[in-house]
Amino acid sequence: MISVSIIGAGNVASHLYQVFSKTKSVSVNQWYNRDLSKISSYQNKVAITDKLSELKEADIYIIAVSDDAISDLSKALPFENRLVAHTSGSVSIYDLDKKNRRGVFYPLQTFSKEAKLDFTNVPICIETIGKKDYPLLKSLAQAIGSNYYKVNSDQRKALHLAAVFVNNFSNQLYRVAHEITESEGVEFDILKPLILETSKKVQNLSPYMAQTGPAKRNDKKTIKRHLKQLENEEHKAIYSLLTKSIKNTHGVPIKAATKSKKQ
Amino acid sequence: MISVSIIGAGNVASHLYQVFSKTKSVSVNQWYNRDLSKISSYQNKVAITDKLSELKEADIYIIAVSDDAISDLSKALPFENRLVAHTSGSVSIYDLDKKNRRGVFYPLQTFSKEAKLDFTNVPICIETIGKKDYPLLKSLAQAIGSNYYKVNSDQRKALHLAAVFVNNFSNQLYRVAHEITESEGVEFDILKPLILETSKKVQNLSPYMAQTGPAKRNDKKTIKRHLKQLENEEHKAIYSLLTKSIKNTHGVPIKAATKSKKQ
Repeated sequence: MISVSIIGAGNVASHLYQVFSKTKSVSVNQWYNRDLSKISSYQNKVAITDKLSELKEADIYIIAVSDDAISDLSKALPFENRLVAHTSGSVSIYDLDKKNRRGVFYPLQTFSKEAKLDFTNVPICIETIGKKDYPLLKSLAQAIGSNYYKVNSDQRKALHLAAVFVNNFSNQLYRVAHEITESEGVEFDILKPLILETSKKVQNLSPYMAQTGPAKRNDKKTIKRHLKQLENEEHKAIYSLLTKSIKNTHGVPIKAATKSKKQ
Repeated sequence: MISVSIIGAGNVASHLYQVFSKTKSVSVNQWYNRDLSKISSYQNKVAITDKLSELKEADIYIIAVSDDAISDLSKALPFENRLVAHTSGSVSIYDLDKKNRRGVFYPLQTFSKEAKLDFTNVPICIETIGKKDYPLLKSLAQAIGSNYYKVNSDQRKALHLAAVFVNNFSNQLYRVAHEITESEGVEFDILKPLILETSKKVQNLSPYMAQTGPAKRNDKKTIKRHLKQLENEEHKAIYSLLTKSIKNTHGVPIKAATKSKKQ
């Protein structure tokens, strides 16, 4: 049995509480938040507190608070030599106060408060300073059914940055597509199966191998027509930049701007 | 029973042949291709030909050839007043020769030759000039289990353009993420569940509502750190442009470039 105390009450903290409390081999000792009202609805299910001084002994203290608050919070913990792990993608493990054994337990997934999360689809990136602390965080990830990966702070920061591209930026491309279809009064719904298939394709194929379309096959006629069709300048700029990027990736020659003006 | 003749042997033609030949209420009369060797492996299953003059009567002739070849091919057909539909996202219905009844049967999905395609996940965009021809193309879409939509040529062109954003451009963002993770020696696999979840989220939520991340919450510190972290100038440009686009969409104030230089 792994005993865990959760610190914080945001999306990640809430989802971790939900999954830990349902996992037989994990017990949530306590849930701390400085604003007790955010977790008071759970007081019949778990010991809650808004005082760090009341934190009891646990195998792992999970700090799931905003990036800026992690360092100060770890300093304020009233104990030493216990395993304290934060859940941030971009905060160094060394930002945790060294009086405790330090770790990172970073679930790489998009969290929204409403939606239920299946942790078998949430990879956990684990880092520890002490080698002997790694197995415990690994066991915690295994207990909730997650895949786990040993990832150092630089690698974690790269993943956090890459996640912005595949999550926030892809989603913004969906938004642009929504604007394009809406402007012609056609349903965005028609694109949904394609959106899903595009993401499925790279589960078994590299993005390089999965690429298709006018930019990759250097179909100048279609690219020109698409650019003419786009009325929004920002959409045009996104189209041009990503077309150029695909051409670079696939070794398609890019015409010099001056040359194309002459023609 | 709907009788169909297929013209062409590319990805779309091949997938349509596969699904039509498995559908009880559809019979493939003939399969034409100017290069017979591409379809000769099917000669025991369906009548094949490389002569347009040999085309027999069918309820629907599906022209699934490259965009540039559609117009000429439709002119070369040796019959009149029959229903001829092309499968292109960007070619006007008026590019078909008017001697026949004209239609469009555009499957909006990403097709690769290897992968099997489940047509229940392939929306079909249907257009006809004659009102009475619509029901037949609709029945064909229904027969293969596809959702169908009545979409005019302008709307179809908008969908085709929007598809480049959600398919080719999203895939390129996955590629950039692959490059970022690879440069730190961390597995791209860790991002795959996030890629999938991002596409699933917008099946029930608008991309506007689904957005999260540093650009949307105007987290200048993280954006600045990410830009510093990116070494590739093209990756930096993509990050900046899509961050700006998210800010515009969500009404986040964008600092003037001159102002930020002064600080």
